[in-house]
Amino acid sequence: MRCEVVAVGTELLLGQIIDTNSSYIGEQLALVGIDSHFQTKVGDNADRIKAVITQALDRSDAVIVCGGLGPTQDDITRDVIADIMGVPLIRDEALVEKIRAIFGGRGRPFPENNLRQADVPEGASLIAQMPGTAPGLVCPVGDKVIYAVPGVPYEMVEMVQGTVLPDLERRAGITAIIKSRTLRTWGDSESGLAEKLHPEFERLENGGAATIAFLASGIEGIKVRITAKADTEADVDAILADEEAVVRAIIGPVVFGVDDDTMESVVLDLLKAQGLTLGLAESLTGGLIASRICDIPGASEAFRGSIVSYASEVKFDVLGVPEGPVVSEAAVRAMAEGAARVLRADCAIAVTGVAGPASQDGEEPGVVWMATLVDGEVVATRAKFPFDRNRMRQFTTITVMNALRMRLLARG
Amino acid sequence: MRCEVVAVGTELLLGQIIDTNSSYIGEQLALVGIDSHFQTKVGDNADRIKAVITQALDRSDAVIVCGGLGPTQDDITRDVIADIMGVPLIRDEALVEKIRAIFGGRGRPFPENNLRQADVPEGASLIAQMPGTAPGLVCPVGDKVIYAVPGVPYEMVEMVQGTVLPDLERRAGITAIIKSRTLRTWGDSESGLAEKLHPEFERLENGGAATIAFLASGIEGIKVRITAKADTEADVDAILADEEAVVRAIIGPVVFGVDDDTMESVVLDLLKAQGLTLGLAESLTGGLIASRICDIPGASEAFRGSIVSYASEVKFDVLGVPEGPVVSEAAVRAMAEGAARVLRADCAIAVTGVAGPASQDGEEPGVVWMATLVDGEVVATRAKFPFDRNRMRQFTTITVMNALRMRLLARG
Repeated sequence: MRCEVVAVGTELLLGQIIDTNSSYIGEQLALVGIDSHFQTKVGDNADRIKAVITQALDRSDAVIVCGGLGPTQDDITRDVIADIMGVPLIRDEALVEKIRAIFGGRGRPFPENNLRQADVPEGASLIAQMPGTAPGLVCPVGDKVIYAVPGVPYEMVEMVQGTVLPDLERRAGITAIIKSRTLRTWGDSESGLAEKLHPEFERLENGGAATIAFLASGIEGIKVRITAKADTEADVDAILADEEAVVRAIIGPVVFGVDDDTMESVVLDLLKAQGLTLGLAESLTGGLIASRICDIPGASEAFRGSIVSYASEVKFDVLGVPEGPVVSEAAVRAMAEGAARVLRADCAIAVTGVAGPASQDGEEPGVVWMATLVDGEVVATRAKFPFDRNRMRQFTTITVMNALRMRLLARG
Repeated sequence: MRCEVVAVGTELLLGQIIDTNSSYIGEQLALVGIDSHFQTKVGDNADRIKAVITQALDRSDAVIVCGGLGPTQDDITRDVIADIMGVPLIRDEALVEKIRAIFGGRGRPFPENNLRQADVPEGASLIAQMPGTAPGLVCPVGDKVIYAVPGVPYEMVEMVQGTVLPDLERRAGITAIIKSRTLRTWGDSESGLAEKLHPEFERLENGGAATIAFLASGIEGIKVRITAKADTEADVDAILADEEAVVRAIIGPVVFGVDDDTMESVVLDLLKAQGLTLGLAESLTGGLIASRICDIPGASEAFRGSIVSYASEVKFDVLGVPEGPVVSEAAVRAMAEGAARVLRADCAIAVTGVAGPASQDGEEPGVVWMATLVDGEVVATRAKFPFDRNRMRQFTTITVMNALRMRLLARG
């Protein structure tokens, strides 16, 4: 079973919008075992859209077309598909009412143009999910199929998950359930992980129930994805759980989370579980650690705040750092203690370093002092990162949060 | 003149990497007036790469192929292009030495596989720019041309700017210089800007020297791009400067910057020019404003720091906010005054609001109080944003920085 992806929109060719939809769909297809050999971007031009979809249908069994389902004159995906199917567009009156109701609910005047969105190629069926005003379509062409979904990412995702993938699996005769689980790691290199997991890789290749893949995700660490296939959901879940236990036993606590976990969500969960609060003193990171923590709903249960002490005087005045070099072990320790005291927090993180371009306190750009405070005890470490300003701050953020995570684990 | 883009790599089809290269190249081609009607992603498979490049060459005058130039067995772009050209690959000994030297310089052992990168299709020429170890190629095919550039974005950009675009312009007979300048705006809607600029649009359409386009960039505001074409660089610059003056006279101070300016870089420049320092008190934004400011090199000249007072007690203890509701005008005013005092800053920004999901102090999620302090005087405003948690924090950040910008402009 092969399925191509066609992304429609002149703005994609002009680089005004980056086509992330095809990447998402490609990943989803791979997960269920459907091949996608070509993915094409084409502008809002009927002849060219027709040529691309026709070719895709010729060399594959199914085509997912994203975009061009809106209400404007540029949105011609419906018309082109009707042309390829050799059928007329029929206005769906139930859909007209549905679209009118959506606009009524938003208290906005109804633009008559929007009725174009209720035109459906004869013989096509509507996708049940319709999170926006653009209906998605399932369009049979002989024993092949064209799916049309909107270019708005969240609308596309809902339709692909709700209708397109299940329909493709049914057509492909895929009755097995395929699921994957991603272990998120920090603190080991891809080659380091590969070496440790090599025997397990070999075991799985010789007839194991699951497969393992690495995905390097830069400043978000390395992901280890476990994929399993079985006849029932319960069996798949059991295989994933078993394999996760095996992998965790091999690579240990570099695994900080699973699937949608982030370093900050995991640290917050540990703090809440242990009834502890956190305060920060940030110089180099300039509020980035605080900002990432505050992105997590419910952060206020454990997060007190951050003293972003960018100027040295703020370190002295507010945090009680002794006057002297501010990129130093003494300074970072005093910052951690100051943060815990001033913010009345149980635990603290402190960061100071040289962002560059100039050196500071005799330290080169890239040098960072990081400290964590747990149960009144400060642990400080020095690092030198070979990165630009932004990556250095991102790396420092996840490194020092991971250090706090390890100390909370050791304690809990 | 038409030019297609082909991105090579199975990891692109699997969604492990998002293809941003095609978008970048598409934008650059549009800027110099070269059409790009199709952009295709294809995996590391010789037959399929050959089919895609051959078709692209058939319907266009030039093809830019990104990726597949690395040293591994998967990297077969060179081989496929030689096949299409009908010529052998010839090892370039000068290139061998160059690649060896790069590896020597990095102090790493030289993998013999890398010699594959020195294989050049007979009749092709090397792209002069070579920021990595992968050489780029210019491969003539009849009166058409294939450019091969690496998939690593910074290597691709250097080669496209240094060789591919100039060569395409020469082939297309484009001798005119085309340049554009982007005015960044905040505080007016796209339709509002379009209405104000409508007469100027009409004037330019009837034979003006420049063109104008809008690019909506979400939480980064709306960009107004002015493009001009002339025979000399000096003439282009003069047209751009004239048109910029016309546009600024019409839309006024919603223009906050030009090209690479950001709201935070502009605010920092204004502060430095006026010899002022800035301190923050952030609750809702949780360090995001500080973090964005610290992304700008040289921020320390004007930026003192931020009190991220996420917990109410931190507002009371550290900033001296009177006990009571913390999402209120009284609280945000006290926060701004507290930030200026505690951080010893001339100016201050304060933000408090309800991120949700629950209401707070009788205010619904989405309600934000923002304050700026300049010359000892606090100005506070209330807003209600209909966004999710993250967008609300981003919108608040740019809105309140823009408010400070307007006050600094009025003062300067």
